[in-house]
Amino acid sequence: MTDRILEDLAAITGPTHVLTGKDAAPWSQDWADMYHWTPLAVVKPANTEEVAAIIRLANEAGVPVVPVSGNTGLVKGTNAEGAIMLSLARMSAIRDINPKGRTATVEAGVILSSLHEAVAEHDLIFPLTFGARGSAMIGGALSTNAGGSNVVRYGSTRGLCLGIEAVTPTGEVMNLMSALHKDNSGYDLRDLLIGAEGTLGVITAAVVKLFPKPRAYATAMVAAPDVTRGLELLHILQAETGGAVEAFEYMPGAYIDAHLKRFPDARPPFEERHEVNILVEVGALAARDAEPGPDGEVPIAAHLEDVLGRLYESGAVVDAVVAKSDAQRAEMWARREAAAEVSRLRDPIVDNDIAVPLDRMQELLERTKARARALDPGVDFLHVAHMGDGNLHFAAWPETTDTDIHRAMGEAVEEETIALGGSFSAEHGIGLSKLPAMGRYKDPVAMEVMRTIKRALDPNGIMNPGKVLP
Amino acid sequence: MTDRILEDLAAITGPTHVLTGKDAAPWSQDWADMYHWTPLAVVKPANTEEVAAIIRLANEAGVPVVPVSGNTGLVKGTNAEGAIMLSLARMSAIRDINPKGRTATVEAGVILSSLHEAVAEHDLIFPLTFGARGSAMIGGALSTNAGGSNVVRYGSTRGLCLGIEAVTPTGEVMNLMSALHKDNSGYDLRDLLIGAEGTLGVITAAVVKLFPKPRAYATAMVAAPDVTRGLELLHILQAETGGAVEAFEYMPGAYIDAHLKRFPDARPPFEERHEVNILVEVGALAARDAEPGPDGEVPIAAHLEDVLGRLYESGAVVDAVVAKSDAQRAEMWARREAAAEVSRLRDPIVDNDIAVPLDRMQELLERTKARARALDPGVDFLHVAHMGDGNLHFAAWPETTDTDIHRAMGEAVEEETIALGGSFSAEHGIGLSKLPAMGRYKDPVAMEVMRTIKRALDPNGIMNPGKVLP
Repeated sequence: MTDRILEDLAAITGPTHVLTGKDAAPWSQDWADMYHWTPLAVVKPANTEEVAAIIRLANEAGVPVVPVSGNTGLVKGTNAEGAIMLSLARMSAIRDINPKGRTATVEAGVILSSLHEAVAEHDLIFPLTFGARGSAMIGGALSTNAGGSNVVRYGSTRGLCLGIEAVTPTGEVMNLMSALHKDNSGYDLRDLLIGAEGTLGVITAAVVKLFPKPRAYATAMVAAPDVTRGLELLHILQAETGGAVEAFEYMPGAYIDAHLKRFPDARPPFEERHEVNILVEVGALAARDAEPGPDGEVPIAAHLEDVLGRLYESGAVVDAVVAKSDAQRAEMWARREAAAEVSRLRDPIVDNDIAVPLDRMQELLERTKARARALDPGVDFLHVAHMGDGNLHFAAWPETTDTDIHRAMGEAVEEETIALGGSFSAEHGIGLSKLPAMGRYKDPVAMEVMRTIKRALDPNGIMNPGKVLP
Repeated sequence: MTDRILEDLAAITGPTHVLTGKDAAPWSQDWADMYHWTPLAVVKPANTEEVAAIIRLANEAGVPVVPVSGNTGLVKGTNAEGAIMLSLARMSAIRDINPKGRTATVEAGVILSSLHEAVAEHDLIFPLTFGARGSAMIGGALSTNAGGSNVVRYGSTRGLCLGIEAVTPTGEVMNLMSALHKDNSGYDLRDLLIGAEGTLGVITAAVVKLFPKPRAYATAMVAAPDVTRGLELLHILQAETGGAVEAFEYMPGAYIDAHLKRFPDARPPFEERHEVNILVEVGALAARDAEPGPDGEVPIAAHLEDVLGRLYESGAVVDAVVAKSDAQRAEMWARREAAAEVSRLRDPIVDNDIAVPLDRMQELLERTKARARALDPGVDFLHVAHMGDGNLHFAAWPETTDTDIHRAMGEAVEEETIALGGSFSAEHGIGLSKLPAMGRYKDPVAMEVMRTIKRALDPNGIMNPGKVLP
């Protein structure tokens, strides 16, 4: 039967685009090389019609299909043991950029940084950005509703998408390619597919929003007395700048230490060591905030410096450095974006991507660390947080090798998150990794509604089976 | 059987809260008194548990349920012939306002303007606003994904909502009351229920986003040479003010004429009559934009005046008046917000709420008017548009009384909208009014997916039957 399916796939895409065995190796593992699987085949369609033909074939044969684009996910969402892996990589056309309408029409296989470059020519930005932007593709970003480091200003991927084209689990092409800011014509199927991790169909193309490129950035490292004062700082900066904060990224002292250990040539952010270090970036959209003065300094940077100076006087800020050059800005960002590399010095044992309401971050940190220490007094932590979104990446290395305690620690972190009104999955999704948490914490009625939708739209259960729904 | 159902309803809510006959009259028509129906009963539950009990009862008996909150909709979405009308009016508690987390937790029956007043005490705003804000309730705004006049800055209702509580069509309470800015825990059921017009369940409560109240507003009437130059003006103003445009509302010369006819004491916006009149409002979030100078003028108003002056010199603007007082600002808004009253001078025969990509508005106006005139050279028009969202409210009064031509004109407007990549329903929803257009223009695969979801979640078809899906 396998041979027959491979032949049928080859008939759709041409044999060059059906890979098995060694040729499929790059798609047989996650990006960190931590998990491995053996797909039935990797198939690389050229267009939406070929995607639809593949899905129809799989649906009739009852063979599972796992869509994959950049394969940079962190929750085993592309694990494809025995499945057809449907790679969107060849569907990489930017079909249209409309500078007046402020939209781009892109295929699922467009790499994030390619889109960044293409729209930059029009002085526009597609704001979604994160460490893996050089490999991650639009299709995966949509399917996982990816977040990143400027959600505080522009929202997650869902908020950046106006329309999608998708292939349903029965192989029909659904055209919702609206470029509209208002469209109340029936159920919101776009947002149902966004974040569904390929379990309800394959997103093949999208219309996304573009924004004016900020004319200048002011970037600073700020040390706050504690995390709660950090949130006040965010609100003050938003008020002072008219909501221009593009990033507000928390790094604890322990992260700075680990970064310096991993990159011995790097410089610390401040002369003194601080517990609460925040990377702040403000984007100037208004012309008058971006025209350099006689000293070469742009008004927005002078303004940020002035505001931080006043906050230092009042004790709301304990230290601050404003970047004076592009190189200094790049240094600040490099420190933050090294998080994946820094945390992989040792593979983290306990690894949670969690979110709480904005004002509960301090409690979250205190309570999760206390619970972890109660289980293992020798535990080490490494956190970073998108603080403007209430999103914490919690990583811990227990001293003990007792895997029961490791598991208990991960669950304790989730319990405290839920107790604070939070979510066990903020921006990475569910995949296979977060299935136990879905089972434990998601509202049971919502779970049953999700299962009902899944069964109705994918009666043969072929689309990315086993993911998202326990 | 009816008596038995009324008794059972009374047992749930107490007999005082089950209304029939004359008592039910206020719920037996739309707000404009144009459409009438006779509900089986109007029932007013006090809380979510009572809502769930009512739905379970209706589901078992196979009796339709039509949820209603403020009943200010425009598409016959609450037509409830023979149905139980489930009024959310008694569920009007603002459960919580969290100024630090910038959220409010509200029940479905909270009137929009009540929420505005409650959060104003914290110097915050809930930005959703439109003419009917004194009657419209949060539940209806969510169920119809209402728009309004500052979507250009804050988005539609969907974008303002973090979490919901809802009762499913089988009477189970689904708790998705997340106050989180990032929550990737499974399918986006929140956005599926938002805009579903009560056909997939009843939204009983929500967590909504709050924003800092702008410290000052600068409001102006601007005349542009044409609509396309108007869009350029929007982009320029966004660039000059750092994206601070709160409203960008188009009123053609004919609307100004009709407004003066309806309100003879009103003043025209300019000394001369212009074809393209735009109400522009900019909100100052930054302190330095809002501190009055020695002349009492706030910097943001001076800046707007300066920008408009330069655009006047270059010919991009043909006339402009900046409001110099709160009274002048109120006058500008009153002119725009009288649209419903002005257009009801005579009931419009052809009435479309349509949207196109931002840069197609000029074409939309030209093409729809040409098509209408080809059908009836004597046709009168009255438009207003949320131009920053590409959303046009198109109303026309043909000279002919031939209803076939009326129908053909409405369809011609829809055809041109669709041809420009637009939607036949921008912010008012589908209800019963737009069912024919759904059947004609919505992607057939999307329609089938919607029907599949509806059948799966509401197997007995009790929730607002006949609405949204033709």
